[in-house]
Amino acid sequence: MQYDNSTTLDPRIVERLKRDAKGLVAAVIQQYDTHEVLMVGYMNDEALRRTLTTGRVTFWSRSRQEYWRKGDTSGHVQYVKSVSLDCDGDALLVEVDQVGAACHTGKRSCFLEGGPLPCVEGHRTAEQTNQSETGKADKEQEERA
Amino acid sequence: MQYDNSTTLDPRIVERLKRDAKGLVAAVIQQYDTHEVLMVGYMNDEALRRTLTTGRVTFWSRSRQEYWRKGDTSGHVQYVKSVSLDCDGDALLVEVDQVGAACHTGKRSCFLEGGPLPCVEGHRTAEQTNQSETGKADKEQEERA
Repeated sequence: MQYDNSTTLDPRIVERLKRDAKGLVAAVIQQYDTHEVLMVGYMNDEALRRTLTTGRVTFWSRSRQEYWRKGDTSGHVQYVKSVSLDCDGDALLVEVDQVGAACHTGKRSCFLEGGPLPCVEGHRTAEQTNQSETGKADKEQEERA
Repeated sequence: MQYDNSTTLDPRIVERLKRDAKGLVAAVIQQYDTHEVLMVGYMNDEALRRTLTTGRVTFWSRSRQEYWRKGDTSGHVQYVKSVSLDCDGDALLVEVDQVGAACHTGKRSCFLEGGPLPCVEGHRTAEQTNQSETGKADKEQEERA
């Protein structure tokens, strides 16, 4: 499917987005080669359009109520490698090449800055360990968030 | 730091959370060994408490307005390996061992189901290519979302 790079977001993408009350979808930013999750930001239609068409990640800042092109003040640019929409259109996975630190604190990832919470680890049963990971449509329809 | 497993979320975590208007934070679910991003869900304080203390991921379903323990109807359980909070307390990174498909459609990841959007790829400059990736506190404070 061919999309164009017009000044408005492609209508075929517009109709797939399921925005929150503020017109935003969550965008998970992942380093494309190491697969490290760097941060979570938010995009409206125009931020997504800019992200898809310019090679640089643009967010909508919920606190400042303005567009925010990552790296403009810090030099810590996020170069876009791929953008995927999830099954129900309310989340984006943006694979990037992150120059320097993703976190405003100087840490590579915002999750390294916040750090781990103490938790109880879970483990597969023996039956689950032997189970194939190849997915097939199943009874989880009712689990959809 | 020691946390307990009481029936309410530890106050030291409660005070770090920055919830949206509906009392939720975004939770990015990542397979702990392959680092694949599987899905994004939402948690309120109690869903996070259950996730931290039971070894299984629990979400708050925004559409059904109820707790949703992943895998209860499908068998596609998410076993918790680690949970990290981000720098400003409004996003969680949950590393899991995902049994079977994370997506209700049967795909391993919700982003595989939605699929990639056409985009322009960005590339580092020669100077950025040679730049060290070790982060340090910088001028990005004003970029904070």
